[in-house]
Amino acid sequence: MRHVISILLQNESGALARVASMFATRGFNIESLNVAPTEDESVSRLTLVTTGTDEVISQISKQLAKLIDVVAIADRTSTDHIERELGLLKLRVEPSATARFDELVASHAAQILDSDPEHVTVEVTGNEREVDAFLDELPPGVKVLALVRSGPLVTSRGPGSLT
Amino acid sequence: MRHVISILLQNESGALARVASMFATRGFNIESLNVAPTEDESVSRLTLVTTGTDEVISQISKQLAKLIDVVAIADRTSTDHIERELGLLKLRVEPSATARFDELVASHAAQILDSDPEHVTVEVTGNEREVDAFLDELPPGVKVLALVRSGPLVTSRGPGSLT
Repeated sequence: MRHVISILLQNESGALARVASMFATRGFNIESLNVAPTEDESVSRLTLVTTGTDEVISQISKQLAKLIDVVAIADRTSTDHIERELGLLKLRVEPSATARFDELVASHAAQILDSDPEHVTVEVTGNEREVDAFLDELPPGVKVLALVRSGPLVTSRGPGSLT
Repeated sequence: MRHVISILLQNESGALARVASMFATRGFNIESLNVAPTEDESVSRLTLVTTGTDEVISQISKQLAKLIDVVAIADRTSTDHIERELGLLKLRVEPSATARFDELVASHAAQILDSDPEHVTVEVTGNEREVDAFLDELPPGVKVLALVRSGPLVTSRGPGSLT
């Protein structure tokens, strides 16, 4: 089962390596991860997506919570949460595909950041499924030159927050 | 100096831990990092931001390039590139601040994802400076309850891509 985990992490050299190693030593793959500063300079916020049984992920979460770098941790999977991802796509669009591509961009409220006769760079936001859908719906004649995704960012629904 | 590095990484358990450890063992902090799948299931794309002299970062990049997991690496810092970041902000907006807050949301083309009398959750996209600016411009009477940022995602300007 897919699990989405939020972590507040001390902003220290090695903290990310220790979190990543916790998964690696158990042979677990991290599908996506993002980490960046928060309003509190001493703390970063990390979101990661992994796959495993509830029991095993619960065990890993408990081990993570014991790391001195981990200030707080929450598995968002079974709670009501908002999930958003950013995708940057660099594409080659054949002239024959332009009309259908423009429709797709409009229907997903995607934003064109850069373009010339050789390529178009587009920004898409949405949940993971919506970014996947944009990719799946690219018409014939559009080639993906580069794909950069943030992986999901999550926050609980409602006023509560991880502290 | 701030450096933005793009990496194509084998999608294998432990690959992220090895990249993160390369910085940790040298005492270097990773300010932000994101990694997620690409169109090629065997390869993930990673973007990280760190700070150091050009010489030291160049040394670390060369060491990273030698890791078996690293398919390709590029320091985007001095090349023409597009940088975008996603920010999710959970905020408490006092009634007195609503009008100024709504103006800020409109001027940054931010998107309200969730709201009730207790809070508002907003999505902001832009480069790192633009996301910072949104935070800096929050009017008095707005409190940040939670801040989740992706860290910058980058791609070179023009049709070229990391392969």
